[in-house]
Amino acid sequence: MRDQSTKQDCVFMARALLLARKGCYTTKPNPRVGCVLVKNNEIIAEGWHMRAGQGHAEVEALKHTQNARGATVYVTLEPCFHYGRTPPCADALIKAGVARVVVAMQDPNPLVAGKGLALLEQAGIRVCSGVLEAEAKQLNKGFINRMLYGKPYVTSKLAMSLDGRTAMASGESKWITSPEARQDVQKLRAASGAVLTGIDTVLADDPGMNVRLDNIDVVQPVRVILDSSLRTPVAAKLLALEGRSIILTCSEDQQKIETLEQAGAEVYHLASDAKGQLDLQEVLVFLAEQQINDVLLEAGSVLNGAMMQQGLIDECIFYMAPSILGASGRGLFAMPEVSVMADKIQLQFVDMRKIGLDLRLHFNVQNQVHK
Amino acid sequence: MRDQSTKQDCVFMARALLLARKGCYTTKPNPRVGCVLVKNNEIIAEGWHMRAGQGHAEVEALKHTQNARGATVYVTLEPCFHYGRTPPCADALIKAGVARVVVAMQDPNPLVAGKGLALLEQAGIRVCSGVLEAEAKQLNKGFINRMLYGKPYVTSKLAMSLDGRTAMASGESKWITSPEARQDVQKLRAASGAVLTGIDTVLADDPGMNVRLDNIDVVQPVRVILDSSLRTPVAAKLLALEGRSIILTCSEDQQKIETLEQAGAEVYHLASDAKGQLDLQEVLVFLAEQQINDVLLEAGSVLNGAMMQQGLIDECIFYMAPSILGASGRGLFAMPEVSVMADKIQLQFVDMRKIGLDLRLHFNVQNQVHK
Repeated sequence: MRDQSTKQDCVFMARALLLARKGCYTTKPNPRVGCVLVKNNEIIAEGWHMRAGQGHAEVEALKHTQNARGATVYVTLEPCFHYGRTPPCADALIKAGVARVVVAMQDPNPLVAGKGLALLEQAGIRVCSGVLEAEAKQLNKGFINRMLYGKPYVTSKLAMSLDGRTAMASGESKWITSPEARQDVQKLRAASGAVLTGIDTVLADDPGMNVRLDNIDVVQPVRVILDSSLRTPVAAKLLALEGRSIILTCSEDQQKIETLEQAGAEVYHLASDAKGQLDLQEVLVFLAEQQINDVLLEAGSVLNGAMMQQGLIDECIFYMAPSILGASGRGLFAMPEVSVMADKIQLQFVDMRKIGLDLRLHFNVQNQVHK
Repeated sequence: MRDQSTKQDCVFMARALLLARKGCYTTKPNPRVGCVLVKNNEIIAEGWHMRAGQGHAEVEALKHTQNARGATVYVTLEPCFHYGRTPPCADALIKAGVARVVVAMQDPNPLVAGKGLALLEQAGIRVCSGVLEAEAKQLNKGFINRMLYGKPYVTSKLAMSLDGRTAMASGESKWITSPEARQDVQKLRAASGAVLTGIDTVLADDPGMNVRLDNIDVVQPVRVILDSSLRTPVAAKLLALEGRSIILTCSEDQQKIETLEQAGAEVYHLASDAKGQLDLQEVLVFLAEQQINDVLLEAGSVLNGAMMQQGLIDECIFYMAPSILGASGRGLFAMPEVSVMADKIQLQFVDMRKIGLDLRLHFNVQNQVHK
């Protein structure tokens, strides 16, 4: 028998969501979770999950009060009931003697969803689920995608001119967008478990693909290069940077593999598709196995086009500079199979705003593939 | 000795500007002008210019009061002092015995600017100029451009996908944008003195280029086709529509000219450029001579690119649909001379909003050519 939620519940859950967001750049591969303890309509303690291996949000909140007996607990994700890297939170809440637990959403893993709440109920605690659920799901869409579909959530970031060009015909692309937009991209990277690109971009731009944000705690995303025939230069800048650099390939050239591994890369062999290229579905399955929730795709038109045509992009963030580069410049999505209007790919508007001199346009892709 | 303006002046001038806007679709080739008469801080009469040949705003306002003696007059443009199609408004105000005249802007024609105000001052009326001047200039930017530079103000309207494509490679373009966006374009056309396109668009799409707005009074814009070698079919849809259709050409083929004239077109011969194409600067000079204030360019990438490269576009309105057409689709601006980033054309953000499912993005072009 579940408890009814009240307007007051939304207020405290909104606070718990704000706390959860503080872990945006650091909890990977864990979900972002926030928790608020309330007695007599006043917050007596707060906590959030900061980093994998450290305390869960509920435990962090309990640390900040002497007496949680009779309190209502607001937590953005159903408390865990199993031993992972840390003891189960449901047990901790029962031991603390709380009276009521309100969660925004159940555990997305269908094998355990509802079991944490059931354990609490068996202990005589009133429970309530679904308060600000949409907001909570938005915050952990990558984690949820991985739990439900065994794939990460893929965001494609594209920098372009007003007339839809990502570079001049020569490949010259520095810089289309403003410093403010490029700084904003750093935040997208920081919130991602992996930054994904193709070998052509590595050869053309030698990108760092790491996060450069001063004075902000960030767990660096894994850098992933799709390199079917192992053309990554050993001197590629990203190999020398702190953190993991993964090269995915269909090549079995052991000598190249060893050389790249010595240069700092992890090289994995994956299945190829009919054209002898990496199978992009397999790439995403592999990344989910690596516990990547959120992938930021920063690639050229060939990889973007292939991912889009295969329904593997979940959302697009366009940074649009107020400039015209002309029709001979490079496009965003190479999609040779789309030649009639009826085959166009439809997106859904989410948000638009100015970032410096540029516009940031946010659109979702409604894929049929894994939704 | 000029009068000082007050905050109260802004309020009444804002009302006069609203009235002026009512003439947006009908005053062409005249400017849009509104007028408010005020006594004891209350509006006693209002008027606006509705249509060329009909009463000016001041005269329309005077019609609506028995006694304007001692009133303050708010008018968005300096009253005329010369006989045109109607008697001078400055005289009418003097005869009515008004005490004070506040204008938003002086006459943009440098030959007569300030002369209307001087006439009023000589008659003992206090005058004040420059109240909400920027807003007044915005409202008549086409008229001002024509008076100052002998050229109309050119707005390019572009319909595109998120990835900057105006059509599929085949030319298929119906429809990229939503019905709401296409309806919005009707308003752009209604506010224009001419809708300009190239022969390729006429051959590909057979457009009507007229305004289709139910229950709204509109003076139809002139339809203008740039057709260097007279390829316009006599059966072209726009030739049969009500209103003027102008074909501009460098061809001297008398037989074709006569056939097109019989089909309803006005055909004019203009100078050609080095490539044997119509000289686009000459085209704009010609349109200004035809008393066109505002040109709406609705063209393909070749004409848009040429106009943009020659600095002849003043602003761009992009209707952007939430779809991806792929890099093989057609672009917006063919600019073969732009091949390095340093030569990109920079625009200035003005406004963005949603129109149905689409985005409307408004940007100005800072041209050095005739500003």
